[in-house]
Amino acid sequence: MVANSKKFMNDPDAIVREMLEGFFGAHPDIVRPSSANPRAVYALDGPREGKVGLVIGGGSGHEPAFIGYVGKGLADAAVAGNVFASPAPEPILQAARDVHRGAGVLFMYGNYAGDVMNFDMAAEMAAMEDLTVRSVAVIDDVASAPRERRTERRGVAGDFFVFKAAGAASDKMLDLDGVVAAAEKANAATLTMGVAMSACTLPQSAAPNFHLGDGEMEIGMGVHGEPGISRGPVLPADKVADELVDRILAESGAGAGEQVSLLVNGLGSTTLMELYVLHRRVRQRLDDARISIHRSFVGEYVTSLEMAGASVSMIRLDDDLRRLLDHPCRTAALVVA
Amino acid sequence: MVANSKKFMNDPDAIVREMLEGFFGAHPDIVRPSSANPRAVYALDGPREGKVGLVIGGGSGHEPAFIGYVGKGLADAAVAGNVFASPAPEPILQAARDVHRGAGVLFMYGNYAGDVMNFDMAAEMAAMEDLTVRSVAVIDDVASAPRERRTERRGVAGDFFVFKAAGAASDKMLDLDGVVAAAEKANAATLTMGVAMSACTLPQSAAPNFHLGDGEMEIGMGVHGEPGISRGPVLPADKVADELVDRILAESGAGAGEQVSLLVNGLGSTTLMELYVLHRRVRQRLDDARISIHRSFVGEYVTSLEMAGASVSMIRLDDDLRRLLDHPCRTAALVVA
Repeated sequence: MVANSKKFMNDPDAIVREMLEGFFGAHPDIVRPSSANPRAVYALDGPREGKVGLVIGGGSGHEPAFIGYVGKGLADAAVAGNVFASPAPEPILQAARDVHRGAGVLFMYGNYAGDVMNFDMAAEMAAMEDLTVRSVAVIDDVASAPRERRTERRGVAGDFFVFKAAGAASDKMLDLDGVVAAAEKANAATLTMGVAMSACTLPQSAAPNFHLGDGEMEIGMGVHGEPGISRGPVLPADKVADELVDRILAESGAGAGEQVSLLVNGLGSTTLMELYVLHRRVRQRLDDARISIHRSFVGEYVTSLEMAGASVSMIRLDDDLRRLLDHPCRTAALVVA
Repeated sequence: MVANSKKFMNDPDAIVREMLEGFFGAHPDIVRPSSANPRAVYALDGPREGKVGLVIGGGSGHEPAFIGYVGKGLADAAVAGNVFASPAPEPILQAARDVHRGAGVLFMYGNYAGDVMNFDMAAEMAAMEDLTVRSVAVIDDVASAPRERRTERRGVAGDFFVFKAAGAASDKMLDLDGVVAAAEKANAATLTMGVAMSACTLPQSAAPNFHLGDGEMEIGMGVHGEPGISRGPVLPADKVADELVDRILAESGAGAGEQVSLLVNGLGSTTLMELYVLHRRVRQRLDDARISIHRSFVGEYVTSLEMAGASVSMIRLDDDLRRLLDHPCRTAALVVA
């Protein structure tokens, strides 16, 4: 199993800049660049007087996260780091200044040491300028730490649900406490389990970022190749889905009569055909548990370059969270009408 | 370069059925199954009295095409063949019966011998039942035949624009002649050039469907691995984009002051990051030619399983076509609000 090291690129050191230029040129009806902040994407009709500003971000290479979730009803800005590396504090701070409209700013990102450090530093610098900033780090990855140490978990595809809830709360003009509460509620309600089939290759490197043998898969591997919880032969799709769902259901506490939303996410080179085969089994399992699915998302929502693999995310819904997920938004990667 | 032969699947012979079951379970608000036609996907709120019925289809393995384009404002039904194989006439005929509402039915598919044969056979059988059926085979793939033999060309990612135009025309309640005219106008205005980086592996097979060496790419290769027009070393992204755009502009006749819509399509395992890098250069070239872009689509719209590669499709717009592309639709793969 050899990762695909052939890429459409020019200078590997320019790939993030060129991606952003391409993104702005493709979606001028949704986003705009800022000459003062070349690593940020701003929503064209995002920030408005009295609305909490929402700034998301993280390393590049996870597209459509994070830039694809900028737009009306979702994030006001995304800050892009280098591939698999956190953005620096300065562009994050600049984004906070630019989306601030008197109601405070919320930073949201996956819980990785680099992101926590740089977003926190930006928040401290913002405080010195009298900008009110709060932060929510997404911690949906079940495999990354045991339940007792839940706050140490990483953020993976569940980012999607947490960002969506916060974006809707902000678009509905909730105050900063209300938007933070929505984000934290979504964060507490979201669990993700992933599985990897093969590695990806970083633009600056010719070698894959980890190695899985022919016929091997790894349950619980992180989106940057962080070690998972079990490696073994590739199982039939239904068994893979069971491995993921078992762990999610064991922890979620969701019971008969409850409603959830699902995300079956492809990590990069896994086909939609396979993701739907996985969704089939996940749904059977939820049907068996008499848990109903309010809305499913199937496709590439948070990727790891061209890694092969998938994840299942489940968010337990109450009326509030359901309304937030259904709230309209218009971004490059997601339109809810 | 070894194709990824690890897949999330159970029995390879059941993969299309299981994909469809997964699809129905994921999108019950958009599509519905039919027990009488297990290989078809029907729009939940598609067919209505006096509306032309739109049936699209082709081999599976190109998801989100074709099933992802079923829904209000786009297709009323999609019929799914086996992987890379045309659907049989019987399910196509059944779909025609089921979406017919007194205004006739339009069949649309990519121009491949198997699809032409089976859709034509279904149309003949429909005629014997006094159902009026017309057909439009999409022929956007510039590399597949010279301009003089344009009607022999294959249909690739440009399917997307042609289906979208016809779906909008049908939703606007144009009569069958009007819907056919919209489809034919879009078909004549759409050109695509593709490039392949690596092969895919069919579910029933452990071997890749063609071979490209390390560091090799092929311009003009078809979505099932049909031979292209030149094979050589992997070029920088801007050069690749130039190769594609040069051929499209040379043939399209689009000139300064005109407006187009673009699709930069990933074939399966090519990242969004790379697609945006390609879009950047395509846009530069169109800016240089003073051709403006009304709307760009970037992502996986018509794939070939997990093939690595991309294509650029351009549709020359007039007011009619622009309105049809902007017309609202709600499908699993595309929401225009």
